[in-house]
Amino acid sequence: MKYGVAIFPSKEIQDEANSYRMRYDPHYALIPPHLTVKEPFEADDDELKTIVEELKKVANETKAFPLRVLKVSSFFPVTNTIYLKVDPVNELLALNERLHHGALPKKQTFAFVPHITIAQELSDDEFSDVFGSLKLQEFNMESTVDRFQLMYQLENGAWTVYDTFTFNKE
Amino acid sequence: MKYGVAIFPSKEIQDEANSYRMRYDPHYALIPPHLTVKEPFEADDDELKTIVEELKKVANETKAFPLRVLKVSSFFPVTNTIYLKVDPVNELLALNERLHHGALPKKQTFAFVPHITIAQELSDDEFSDVFGSLKLQEFNMESTVDRFQLMYQLENGAWTVYDTFTFNKE
Repeated sequence: MKYGVAIFPSKEIQDEANSYRMRYDPHYALIPPHLTVKEPFEADDDELKTIVEELKKVANETKAFPLRVLKVSSFFPVTNTIYLKVDPVNELLALNERLHHGALPKKQTFAFVPHITIAQELSDDEFSDVFGSLKLQEFNMESTVDRFQLMYQLENGAWTVYDTFTFNKE
Repeated sequence: MKYGVAIFPSKEIQDEANSYRMRYDPHYALIPPHLTVKEPFEADDDELKTIVEELKKVANETKAFPLRVLKVSSFFPVTNTIYLKVDPVNELLALNERLHHGALPKKQTFAFVPHITIAQELSDDEFSDVFGSLKLQEFNMESTVDRFQLMYQLENGAWTVYDTFTFNKE
């Protein structure tokens, strides 16, 4: 099965992201708004057990940290994806690092740019219009991250949460 | 916020359910195929803390049990909902009971009929057609339940998983 690891931001930020995603993101129906901290990877049932144990360790070593969204950015010209740019605080970067060590799959195709996608697969004209207006807008949303989720993908492309890993809050 | 508690069956059962849901269930995009074990309830942040502690206790008291789907059934004439009928094993009935005790909200509008919805809000003609053909079909799917999930609802009606409660597997 194909698995991935993501953080779901606060309901406030998810609702804001969905107000754009419903129009501009064909993945709108497949998963709630999220920040991917580990790209999709294949694992069988045996590997899964090891991965779950590793993820527990990672979560135990992680302290709650702030998730701040201040503006919109884009991966243009690589892709037409538009996203809520998430402040790359050290704790988040360190979490991403730890999710690619030890017994965990190490593959990470792109440098880690913390983001919540709100538009993708737009035509060039659509992209120019939407990004042109959104990039002028200020955002000021913050929530606290104290967990991440391991998900698996169904045949229709949607993701189901398999397990939740809460940080060590001490 | 509005919360609910559900069990996600195996990927195999979810994929099978989605093959019908994509055509017949307008909630298809809001949540993966699921078995509701506690109907939606409102809770504030303080109540949530208590509820999470209670859910941990319930999960600790619960042993893994089989989830078997053998046929399709319907809530007609109350509603036109069609569902995969889930074998009401004692462990599942007991779990549902425990999720309505102690500090947990007690409201349960209907008697508990374990089911995975695959069609709803059909016209009467559609209902007759779809149920007429599906009720003749045999299903023989089984998976093991070893967890349930607490979810909250976004403004667009979709559900995000807040936490996962795994059973005491000893």
